[in-house]
Amino acid sequence: MTESVDRLFVHCRQLVTLTDGDPTGPRRGDAMRRLGVIDDGAVAVREGRIVAVGTTAEIRAAYDAPEELDLDGFVVLPGFVDCHTHPVFAATREREFHMRCAGADYMAIAAAGGGILSSMRAVRAASLAQLTERTERHLWRFLEHGITTVEAKGGYGLSLVDEQKSMQALEQAGAGVPLLLRRTFLGAHEFPPEYRDDRDEYVRIVCDEMIPSLAPLADYCDVFAEPGVFTREQSERVLRAARAAGLRLRVHADEIQPMGGTEMAVALGADSVDHLGQISDAGIAALAGSDTVGVLLPGTIFFLGKSGYAPARRMIEAGCAVALATDFNPGSSHTQSMTMIHTIACTQMHMSVEECVVASTINPAFSLQLDHEVGTLHPGKRCDLAVLDIASVDAIGYAFGGNPVVMTVKDGLPVVANVADHNPDWFADGAVLDEEWEGGEE
Amino acid sequence: MTESVDRLFVHCRQLVTLTDGDPTGPRRGDAMRRLGVIDDGAVAVREGRIVAVGTTAEIRAAYDAPEELDLDGFVVLPGFVDCHTHPVFAATREREFHMRCAGADYMAIAAAGGGILSSMRAVRAASLAQLTERTERHLWRFLEHGITTVEAKGGYGLSLVDEQKSMQALEQAGAGVPLLLRRTFLGAHEFPPEYRDDRDEYVRIVCDEMIPSLAPLADYCDVFAEPGVFTREQSERVLRAARAAGLRLRVHADEIQPMGGTEMAVALGADSVDHLGQISDAGIAALAGSDTVGVLLPGTIFFLGKSGYAPARRMIEAGCAVALATDFNPGSSHTQSMTMIHTIACTQMHMSVEECVVASTINPAFSLQLDHEVGTLHPGKRCDLAVLDIASVDAIGYAFGGNPVVMTVKDGLPVVANVADHNPDWFADGAVLDEEWEGGEE
Repeated sequence: MTESVDRLFVHCRQLVTLTDGDPTGPRRGDAMRRLGVIDDGAVAVREGRIVAVGTTAEIRAAYDAPEELDLDGFVVLPGFVDCHTHPVFAATREREFHMRCAGADYMAIAAAGGGILSSMRAVRAASLAQLTERTERHLWRFLEHGITTVEAKGGYGLSLVDEQKSMQALEQAGAGVPLLLRRTFLGAHEFPPEYRDDRDEYVRIVCDEMIPSLAPLADYCDVFAEPGVFTREQSERVLRAARAAGLRLRVHADEIQPMGGTEMAVALGADSVDHLGQISDAGIAALAGSDTVGVLLPGTIFFLGKSGYAPARRMIEAGCAVALATDFNPGSSHTQSMTMIHTIACTQMHMSVEECVVASTINPAFSLQLDHEVGTLHPGKRCDLAVLDIASVDAIGYAFGGNPVVMTVKDGLPVVANVADHNPDWFADGAVLDEEWEGGEE
Repeated sequence: MTESVDRLFVHCRQLVTLTDGDPTGPRRGDAMRRLGVIDDGAVAVREGRIVAVGTTAEIRAAYDAPEELDLDGFVVLPGFVDCHTHPVFAATREREFHMRCAGADYMAIAAAGGGILSSMRAVRAASLAQLTERTERHLWRFLEHGITTVEAKGGYGLSLVDEQKSMQALEQAGAGVPLLLRRTFLGAHEFPPEYRDDRDEYVRIVCDEMIPSLAPLADYCDVFAEPGVFTREQSERVLRAARAAGLRLRVHADEIQPMGGTEMAVALGADSVDHLGQISDAGIAALAGSDTVGVLLPGTIFFLGKSGYAPARRMIEAGCAVALATDFNPGSSHTQSMTMIHTIACTQMHMSVEECVVASTINPAFSLQLDHEVGTLHPGKRCDLAVLDIASVDAIGYAFGGNPVVMTVKDGLPVVANVADHNPDWFADGAVLDEEWEGGEE
């Protein structure tokens, strides 16, 4: 007697379940090495949730479904969870990228109109509809890369009205895209020019005006805690105000110069502390003893042509829960590819396959309080899958510079397929170009 | 009165023609900065060749065609020319990659069965049909990344019979793929175990047996000239034998330790000298005064987690003609993405957009004696195009970790389309999976 479900995904060359351990994160120590791989794996789905995982034979023996999708030859993982992104922007910054590659320093780029304030001007100039349209395009692209859960920050408005527009654009864009979204208010991303000479007044506006007004549009509050940007004292003020307004906390910290940002984040009970290129030994110790997840953004170091990668090995060996994220943004990390982040994590931070997988699934899910919903393939969780065209899970990180994701499944439904069509019959079927192509990116 | 052609490509957001200068390479000095960009550009094609380029209005006024393809929103470049690849292999080496990322040194990897000799064992064990099938899959993937001309090396057989099998596999695979291929014999890639203790005997076999026998299957001969592999004297012997057999020359040189390999390659009139992480000042001067192209392989340095990038800026400023290539191979650079190589070239070697474009089109074409055929969009050349979904040519290098190539045109025909299909109607049209997907990669 078999049980009826909605759909089976069968014949996965390898199904990476992460079900050898507890269903919820953070995955530390030994747990970072247990992938729970099932050869010729299958997933049974009902109402968007996982009913069971097993071998194809086991699942077919126990379940029947009106639909079956054959994933023969592919490696299937939990959909990636990207817990640090800045997708609410209106314009790319490729000229600044090339100025920096040519050796221009931060001040020269700022003088030429670049940097975060460049994105601020573009966001302020955009209408809500324009910003929503652009953001929606960015959100779809996460899905094209197998990312099914995204933490998305505002932070390019830097005024009440423009941060409100950003959070509204995020909400409206998210409504049109099958992603699980968590929203972060980041008014304290930089000081806008009008408060450059009265920084404490901007902090007051963030705390007393923006946070109370925008808390209903956000799940988290983040702050760029860094010498020269928000001091430790200013950062604490923002984070305490956010907590008082019911927001949970994330912190940009210890990116360029150490300032005890990690220790502060842990002390305040932040869910994540992010960047960490300059984390101190004390910061590592504090993090290891906490439930705060350390979010590493190696794509940013690579994209900026720097060398200060976060000390991933020391952190993992100390017992920190580590996540990897794209840091997708127009200035310092213009990628939405989690698999590219894996390659950088392997080659530059010496992380293993197992660590990369855990750090892009259950650990970031934990940092978003979504570990009961996503991040592993335990029964009851959402059926979110990243389907990769790689030889085995050992090839995570090994193929780079393309997109190995051939299909993304969200809540049990395929929502993106990346098809490389050889010798397309263009002129017999002009519809390929007209209907399926999206047109140029920004 | 309009002239009849076969096909028009119209409304390219930007058409990057490289037609501001001489049609043939190498493009040095000022020429490295002249892209010849046409906004709203168009190309007229007849019998696979470019008849004219111009604005869409100009081309439509002068030509009519039964077929027109609208590339609205895309940036269109000459198809990329990848002049250093090793696609004739039978097995990937992802476990070795992760051992290296975890800190294993070359000797430990070799002891575990890794390295070039691992690929040698797999090639020797493969049948010609198996090796052909694998190689053909690799060749298609170049096209998926906008690469339309490829220099492809053997070099994982390391015996007469296995190098012959490799060159035959390359020829048979190439017959099934619409790439312009140049074939390179690389018997002197490493010493096989049976001659580890009699290296000069292996060099003699390469020179006296392999080269005379395999020259009809190759256009070039290459050698891995490096202390610990082929000494300068051994390399010269191989290269002179190859030249005597009618082959042109390419050289792996100055990768790990300087050995005057660049100076040797220039003195022998090699068409390219490749790697160059440790090129000396004398090597740069010799190269700048020659017609030899310096081929930089930054993907390899990145993939190996090293820091010794070739001194691209000093080379370009000294007047060297520089090319970029993927070095696609299973051990030290497992990528086929030229756009990823652009990002690494920009961020780690400080190359500009113009330099990246020239270095991946006309300069490598020159190094392959194909500068009259490909590498720019001059009338009369083959109509090979890479169609990129980026905002402008300035965004070359800026978006990383995916594949911005949405279409590849070879000899005037679209041969690959990369389509991201959102919300595919899978179950109404199961054909998408069955017919178009290729199945798992190796």
